[in-house]
Amino acid sequence: MGLLDPLFGAEAIDQIFADSSCVQRMLDFEAALARAEAKLGVIPQTAAVPIETKCRAELLDLKKLATDAGRAGNLAIPLVKQLTALVQKEDAEAARYVHWGATSQDVIDTALVLQLRDAFAWMENRVGEICDRLATLCEQHRSTVMAGRTWMQQAVPIVFGLKTALWLDAMVRHRARLRETRKRALVLQFGGAAGTLASLGTRGIEVGNALGEELHLEFPAAPWHTNRDRVVEIATTLESLTGTLGKIARDISLMMQTEVDEVSEPFGEGRGGSSTMPQKRNPVACAAVLAAAQRVQGLTITMMAAMSQEHERGLGGWHAEWETLPEIARLCGGALRWISETVDGLEVHREQMLENIESFHGLIYSEAVSTALAKKLGKSAAHEIVANAARQAFEDKKHLREALSADPKVNSQLSAKEIGELFDPQQHLGVAQQFIDRVIAASRLDRGEDK
Amino acid sequence: MGLLDPLFGAEAIDQIFADSSCVQRMLDFEAALARAEAKLGVIPQTAAVPIETKCRAELLDLKKLATDAGRAGNLAIPLVKQLTALVQKEDAEAARYVHWGATSQDVIDTALVLQLRDAFAWMENRVGEICDRLATLCEQHRSTVMAGRTWMQQAVPIVFGLKTALWLDAMVRHRARLRETRKRALVLQFGGAAGTLASLGTRGIEVGNALGEELHLEFPAAPWHTNRDRVVEIATTLESLTGTLGKIARDISLMMQTEVDEVSEPFGEGRGGSSTMPQKRNPVACAAVLAAAQRVQGLTITMMAAMSQEHERGLGGWHAEWETLPEIARLCGGALRWISETVDGLEVHREQMLENIESFHGLIYSEAVSTALAKKLGKSAAHEIVANAARQAFEDKKHLREALSADPKVNSQLSAKEIGELFDPQQHLGVAQQFIDRVIAASRLDRGEDK
Amino acid sequence: MGLLDPLFGAEAIDQIFADSSCVQRMLDFEAALARAEAKLGVIPQTAAVPIETKCRAELLDLKKLATDAGRAGNLAIPLVKQLTALVQKEDAEAARYVHWGATSQDVIDTALVLQLRDAFAWMENRVGEICDRLATLCEQHRSTVMAGRTWMQQAVPIVFGLKTALWLDAMVRHRARLRETRKRALVLQFGGAAGTLASLGTRGIEVGNALGEELHLEFPAAPWHTNRDRVVEIATTLESLTGTLGKIARDISLMMQTEVDEVSEPFGEGRGGSSTMPQKRNPVACAAVLAAAQRVQGLTITMMAAMSQEHERGLGGWHAEWETLPEIARLCGGALRWISETVDGLEVHREQMLENIESFHGLIYSEAVSTALAKKLGKSAAHEIVANAARQAFEDKKHLREALSADPKVNSQLSAKEIGELFDPQQHLGVAQQFIDRVIAASRLDRGEDK
Amino acid sequence: MGLLDPLFGAEAIDQIFADSSCVQRMLDFEAALARAEAKLGVIPQTAAVPIETKCRAELLDLKKLATDAGRAGNLAIPLVKQLTALVQKEDAEAARYVHWGATSQDVIDTALVLQLRDAFAWMENRVGEICDRLATLCEQHRSTVMAGRTWMQQAVPIVFGLKTALWLDAMVRHRARLRETRKRALVLQFGGAAGTLASLGTRGIEVGNALGEELHLEFPAAPWHTNRDRVVEIATTLESLTGTLGKIARDISLMMQTEVDEVSEPFGEGRGGSSTMPQKRNPVACAAVLAAAQRVQGLTITMMAAMSQEHERGLGGWHAEWETLPEIARLCGGALRWISETVDGLEVHREQMLENIESFHGLIYSEAVSTALAKKLGKSAAHEIVANAARQAFEDKKHLREALSADPKVNSQLSAKEIGELFDPQQHLGVAQQFIDRVIAASRLDRGEDK
Repeated sequence: MGLLDPLFGAEAIDQIFADSSCVQRMLDFEAALARAEAKLGVIPQTAAVPIETKCRAELLDLKKLATDAGRAGNLAIPLVKQLTALVQKEDAEAARYVHWGATSQDVIDTALVLQLRDAFAWMENRVGEICDRLATLCEQHRSTVMAGRTWMQQAVPIVFGLKTALWLDAMVRHRARLRETRKRALVLQFGGAAGTLASLGTRGIEVGNALGEELHLEFPAAPWHTNRDRVVEIATTLESLTGTLGKIARDISLMMQTEVDEVSEPFGEGRGGSSTMPQKRNPVACAAVLAAAQRVQGLTITMMAAMSQEHERGLGGWHAEWETLPEIARLCGGALRWISETVDGLEVHREQMLENIESFHGLIYSEAVSTALAKKLGKSAAHEIVANAARQAFEDKKHLREALSADPKVNSQLSAKEIGELFDPQQHLGVAQQFIDRVIAASRLDRGEDK
Repeated sequence: MGLLDPLFGAEAIDQIFADSSCVQRMLDFEAALARAEAKLGVIPQTAAVPIETKCRAELLDLKKLATDAGRAGNLAIPLVKQLTALVQKEDAEAARYVHWGATSQDVIDTALVLQLRDAFAWMENRVGEICDRLATLCEQHRSTVMAGRTWMQQAVPIVFGLKTALWLDAMVRHRARLRETRKRALVLQFGGAAGTLASLGTRGIEVGNALGEELHLEFPAAPWHTNRDRVVEIATTLESLTGTLGKIARDISLMMQTEVDEVSEPFGEGRGGSSTMPQKRNPVACAAVLAAAQRVQGLTITMMAAMSQEHERGLGGWHAEWETLPEIARLCGGALRWISETVDGLEVHREQMLENIESFHGLIYSEAVSTALAKKLGKSAAHEIVANAARQAFEDKKHLREALSADPKVNSQLSAKEIGELFDPQQHLGVAQQFIDRVIAASRLDRGEDK
Repeated sequence: MGLLDPLFGAEAIDQIFADSSCVQRMLDFEAALARAEAKLGVIPQTAAVPIETKCRAELLDLKKLATDAGRAGNLAIPLVKQLTALVQKEDAEAARYVHWGATSQDVIDTALVLQLRDAFAWMENRVGEICDRLATLCEQHRSTVMAGRTWMQQAVPIVFGLKTALWLDAMVRHRARLRETRKRALVLQFGGAAGTLASLGTRGIEVGNALGEELHLEFPAAPWHTNRDRVVEIATTLESLTGTLGKIARDISLMMQTEVDEVSEPFGEGRGGSSTMPQKRNPVACAAVLAAAQRVQGLTITMMAAMSQEHERGLGGWHAEWETLPEIARLCGGALRWISETVDGLEVHREQMLENIESFHGLIYSEAVSTALAKKLGKSAAHEIVANAARQAFEDKKHLREALSADPKVNSQLSAKEIGELFDPQQHLGVAQQFIDRVIAASRLDRGEDK
Repeated sequence: MGLLDPLFGAEAIDQIFADSSCVQRMLDFEAALARAEAKLGVIPQTAAVPIETKCRAELLDLKKLATDAGRAGNLAIPLVKQLTALVQKEDAEAARYVHWGATSQDVIDTALVLQLRDAFAWMENRVGEICDRLATLCEQHRSTVMAGRTWMQQAVPIVFGLKTALWLDAMVRHRARLRETRKRALVLQFGGAAGTLASLGTRGIEVGNALGEELHLEFPAAPWHTNRDRVVEIATTLESLTGTLGKIARDISLMMQTEVDEVSEPFGEGRGGSSTMPQKRNPVACAAVLAAAQRVQGLTITMMAAMSQEHERGLGGWHAEWETLPEIARLCGGALRWISETVDGLEVHREQMLENIESFHGLIYSEAVSTALAKKLGKSAAHEIVANAARQAFEDKKHLREALSADPKVNSQLSAKEIGELFDPQQHLGVAQQFIDRVIAASRLDRGEDK
C-alpha cells in the first residue's frame, strides 16, 4: 500500500491493478489460449493442463520479471520465458506450446481488458449507489429552499433537491456511458505479430473465437494493436465521470465555506483536522475528489497523445498507456468512493440555506420583481427600475422591498401587498419540482437498461 | 478568412462557426422562443412576428456587440439589448417579450448546439465517405504484400489491404460514436436564470417542449447549465476521431519517407513544395492532420478542465468553452477534409512494397521459419536458432535463407525446398483477408444504423 | 475584430498577431536578409533596395497567400513567390536574390520571434504596472485584518496586505522569468534548408551575424529548426504567468461571493450584468482571467506535445505551433489587461472583512488559544481542549470564548482577562508585516534588474 | 520495486521519492525546526535532542500513517501525532514542542523540496554526462555525411555531427534551466497556519532564517503556500528536458528503421527482443523515452491546472501535486538514464548513411544544383528547371544528373564537369562544422557556470 493510497485510491481498484493481479491476468490469457488451442487441436490436447497448471502468479519471480522487462521492453517477453521454463520442468513437450501464435501485445492488452472489466463492474455498482442516494436526497429536499448562484453570486431561489437532481442527471448519463464503453471497448486483443495471426496458418479466426469464449470476451472484427480509440474511450469515459464528481465536490466545497455553511461532509474521528488549528473540519472528500478530477484530465491527455501509433505496433505511444490507464482507474475509483460516502452522510443545514437567502437585502428576488413589473412596463423598463433599486439597496444596506416601495414607478403599479408577496421564495421556484421528477424518472428508466 | 484557414480548416465548418452564423443561431433561438411562447399564449400572439422579423444577424451591429460583450461578459446580454431596440422601433409592445423567460446561457448554449448539429451532419458525411473509400482500398489491396512493422522495424509480411482495413475498423466505431453523441449531447438548453424557469411560473415545461419542437431539438429531463458532460462528450468524440485520422497520417507519412516510398499523397500544382529545394513533394496533408490531432488534444483538455463549474452557472469554466469547442470542430473538419482527399487519391507503390520486403536479407520471415522449426524443436529452441541466424545474416549482410541452410540444426529438420518455401510471403498472411472481410462487413452493418 | 476579442484579448497583442502584421514581419525578415547580404556582397548591392521596397504587406494579396499556403503547406512559399513577382516587375535582376539562402522556416520562425518581442515588451510593462499597483495595495492594507482561509475554511486572522503581497511575490518572479525567457528564446532563426546554410557556401555565419544586426536579434550558436525548447519556454513562461493571474482571480471571485463580500471588481456601465437578473454585478474580469488560465494550459500542452520534431524539420509538430503560440499570447495579454484594471480599481470592504472574522463564534482564534494553552499544557493537550471547545461552540452556536471560559482545564490556567486578550486579531498577525516588507523590497530589487 | 520501474524509472530517483524517504524528509524538517527553535530559545534547549532522536522514519508505523492520512487529508497530521507520541514516551516536556509554530504544508512542501534537491543533483550530473558524450559524438562525426531530412523526406546533405550538435545545443540550455530553477524554486516553505507565523509571535523571521540554515535552504521573502509558480517551474523545466530527450529518441528511432538503418541503440542480452519474432532488435530505449515524454506532458498539465489555489491554502489543487511531481521526476530520470546509455553506446553506420544519400537518384542535390543555376538564371527559373528534372528523375527512376545533363537550359549554362561537381556532398555542407564548433564552445562556456 502506497502512502497516499487510502487518500486517493479505492481498495478494490488498487487490488485489481496490483502488480501480482496484472501478472495473473496475463497468465489467465496464456492458460485460456492453451485450453482453446488444445480444444481445437491446434496444439496437442495434452499440452493444455501442464501449461494451465503453471499459470499462477505466485509461481513467478516478479522481481526478475520486472528487471527483465526493463531490458526486453515489455512484461510479456520475460513472463513467457518464465512460464515456459516452469512448464518445461514438468513437461518438455507442453512447453513447446506456451504462448502459441500470440504476440506480446495480445497478452498485455487482453490482461488490461480483463482488469478493466473487473474495475468497470465495481464502478458501475458505485455509480448505481450514488444515483440511488442522490435520488433519495432529491426527494428529501424537493422543497428545501436555497439560493441559486450564478457566476458565484446569489441569483434566484432554487431548492436543494434541484441541485442534487442535476448532479443525478449527469450521473445517469455516466452510467449509460460506462455501459456503452464496456460493450464497445472491453474486447479480446488477438492478432499475432502484425495482425495476421500468421503463425496459426488458416486457423486464426477459430482460435480467436475459442479464446474469446474462454475469457468471456468478444473477439472483435479485427485486432486493434494500433487502433487505440477503444482505450481512449475508456479513458475519456472515466475522465468525464471523474469530472462530474469534481463538479459535485466543487459545489459541496463552496457550500461548506465558513460564511456559507449550507452543508457539511460527514465527519469522524481523525478526519479533516489540522496540525495546528483545533477548530478545523476540512473537507477532505472534496479535496481528494477535486485533486482526482484534475489528475485524471492530465492522464487522459497522455492517452490521447498516444493515439497516433506507428504501423502495426506503436513505439512509445503504446508504452505510455501501461501505467496511465490503471492510474486513471485508481483515481476515478477513489473519487467514486469519496462521493458515494459523502452523499450518503451529507449534513444539510436547511435553516442556514434559508438564512443565506434572506440575509442579503432581498436582492435575490430581483428577477421575480422584474418579471412582475415587466408584465406592466415591459422587460427593459422593469429591468432598469429593479437594477437601480438593487444598487440602492446594496449601497444603503437596506432591503430591496423598501427601495422598491419608495419608487413611484413601482408603487404606482404594484400594491404593498403585491410587492410583499414577491419576496416569498416558494412563489419563485418555477418548475424545479417537475425537473426533479423528470430526472428521477430518467434515472429509473436507465436503471432498467442495466438488466 | 484567416491566413491559415485553407491549411487547417474546412470551409463548411468555418462557415458554420463564423461570427455572423453564431449570432444568427442565437437569433434563431430568440425567434423560436417567441413563436413557442406566442403559440402557448405565454406572451401575446401578436408579439411573435415583430420579434421574429428582427432576428436576422445582418440587422445587428456586430462590432458594437463584440465591444459590449467585452463588458457584459457574454454575447447574449448585448444581443438581447440590440434585438429589443430593433423590435421596439416597430412594436413597443412586442419588444417587452423579447427573450421572455430565458437566460443568457440558454441562448448561448443552444446556439452552439445548433451550430454543432450542422457540423456533425457534415462530419458524419465525411466519415461515411472516408469509410467507403477505405473499403475500396481494402478490396483493391487485399493481396498487395508489404512489410508489417512493429516498433518501427520490419516484423512479418502483411497486405496493404489489412492496414487500410484497420483504419476502416476504427472509422466505423467513430461513425457510431458521432451518432451516439449527436443523440445524447445535441439537446436544447432551457432553464432560465438558475434552472427553475421561474419567470415562466408553472409553464416552463410546456414552453421547453414547444421550443424544442420549433428548433427540432430534444428538451431534456433538466437544464445542463453546469453539467458539462455533454459538451465534454462532443469534444472527446471529435478528439478521438481526429486522433485516428492522425494515426492514418502517421502511417502514410512513415510510408512516404524517401527510403520507404510505399505510398504518396496525391500531388498537384503548388502542393507540398519547398521555398528552396526543387525536388520536394512534402506530405502536406499528413502535416496538417498530425498538427490537428495534437492541437485537438490540447483543446480537449481545456474542455475537461472546465467541467467542475460552480453552482448553477460557472465562473470561467463556461467561458473557457466558447472559443474552444468551435476550434475543435474546425480542426477536426480540416483533418477530415485532408484524409478524405488523401485516401481518395492515394498513390500505392506495390513494387516498392515488395522490394522493401525482399531487400532486408529475408529477416522478415524469421517468425515463419521459427514457427516451422518450433513444430519440430519446440518454441524456445526454434526461437534461439533463428535469432542467431538472423544476427548472423544481419551482420554479414547475407540472406537469412543462407544462414539457416548452413546450420545443421536446421538442415537436419528441413529440406532445402522446405526452407525455400518459407520465404514466400503469400504463405504467411494468416487470416489477413478474413480480417479484411470482417471489417468490411462490420462497416456495412453500421452503415445500416444510420438509416 | 472577432466577436470575443474584447472579452478575451488585448488590443495591443491582437494587433501584433494580426494576419497583416504576421505577413509584415515575414517581409521584414526578407528585407533585412537582402540588406545584410548586399552589404556583405553575397548578393549584388543593387538588389537590396528593389527587394526592400516591395516588402510591404499591403502590396501582397493576402487572400491568395492564404489559399496558396493551404496547398504549399506554409506561408513562406507563396509569400516568397508573390514578393519575387513584385520585385520582378521592377527589377528582374534583383528578383533573382529574393529569400537568398534562407528556408521557409527561417522566415516563419523569425517573424514569430519579432512578433513575440513586441508582445513581451507590452507584457513586461503590464506586469510592471500590476506590481506597482499591488505594492500600493500592500501599503494601504498592511493593517486591514481579515480571515485567512485554508481548505476554503476560515483558519486564522491575516491582513489583506499580506494576501496582496503574496500575489506580488509571484508577479515579481514572473517579471524575472519574462526577462530571462526573452533573452534566451527570442533569437534569430537562420539555418537554410537543413541547418547548414549550404546555399551560402562558406559565408553562412557572416550573413547570420549581419542579419541578426539588422533585426536586432542575437544569432545563436546554431539553428533551432527542430529544437523547440525555446518556443516551449515562451509558452510555459506565459502559461505560468497566466496561472498566477488565475490564482488572483480565484481569490477575488471567492471574496466577491454574496455571502463573503469582501472585495468588488471595479464596475461600470454595461459591465457584468445579467440578461434577466437586475441585481447582478458579475465578476467579469475574474471569469475572463480564469477562462484564460484554463485555456492557456491546454494550448501549452500542444506546444509541449509538438517538441519531438523529426530530423531537420518537423512534420505536424512545427505546424501545430503556428496558431497556438499567438493564441497563448492573446489570452495572456487579455488576462494581464483584466488583472491590471482590477487591482487598479479594486473596492476593498474593510468592515465586511472584520465582520466576517467576528461572525463565526470566534473559532478563528482557536490556534491562538491553543498556542497560549500549549505553553502551559503542551501542544497535544491544548489542541484537544480547544478542538472540543470549538466543536461545542459550533454546535451550540455560542462563542468560543464562552465555551473556553466554562472549561475548568482552561480557566485554571488562564484568567478571564487573558482569555479575552486572545480574541484580539491584532495580537495574532505574527510577522505578516515583515513578510509584506520583504516582498516589496524584493520587488524593488528586481525592478532594478530591468535597467 | 514496481513491475515497470526498471523500464520507466531510474533507481536513484526512485529511492529519493520512495515512501520511507518521503517520511524521512518530513522528519528532517521536524528535527531541523526543533534544533533551530532550541538554538534561538523559542523552545527549551532541552527539547531539541529528544525530538531529533525520534526523527527516524524506521521508528514510525508507515501503514498506520497511510491509513490515518486517508482520513486527515494529508501526511503531516498523523506524522506529527506519531512523532509526538514517540517523544512523549521519552520526554513529556519535549513532546510539547514537536512541530512548534509550523503548519502541515510547511513540512510537506519542504520535504518535497529536499527530495527535489537530491533529484536535481542527480539530474544535473546526468545532463552533464550526456553533454560530454554528445560533444564526443560531434567531434567523431563532424565529417560523417548523411541525408538531412525535412518533413520526413530527404532534403540536402548534412553531417551526423551536426545532428548531434543540435541535440547538444538544446541540452546545454536545459542544463542552464535546471540550474536557474534549482536556485529560484528549491527554497524553504515556512509560514505557519495562514502565512503569518502567528504562533511564533514576533520571532517568525528569525526562526525561518535559522531553519533555512539548518536545512541549507534559502528562506524566501514570503511563504508560497498558494503561489505555485515555483513547483510549476520545476515541472515545466523537467518537462521541457524530457521533451528534448524525446526529440533525440524520435530521431534515433527514425534512423533505426529497417529501411534507413543508420544508427542502432546499443544492444545486449535480453534486450529489445520479441516474444515471437527472432530477428527483432527493438529500440527499447527510444520507446521508453518517447513514452516518458508523452507522460510528463500530461502530468505537467496537472501541475498547471493546480495553480489557481484558493486563498491561503488550496483545496484539491495542492493535493493534486503530491504524487504528480515525483512521477514527473521519476519519468524524467528514467529518460535521462536511457539517453545517457544510448548516446554512450550508439552504433553509427557511416556507410549506410552515405548509401542512403546516394540511392535516391541524386535528388538530394536539387538545392545545390538550383543554387548554382540561380546564379546564372535567377532563383525562380532555376527552381523550376530543377523541379522538372527532379520529377522526371523520380518518375523514370534515373539519376538527377542525367536528367539535368539532357536539358539544354542546363547544359548551355553548366559544363558536364561542373554538373558532376555539384553531386559531391562534401561541397554542400555549408557552415555545418562551424555550427558544430559554436555549439561545443557554448557547452564549454555553460559548463563553467556550474562551478
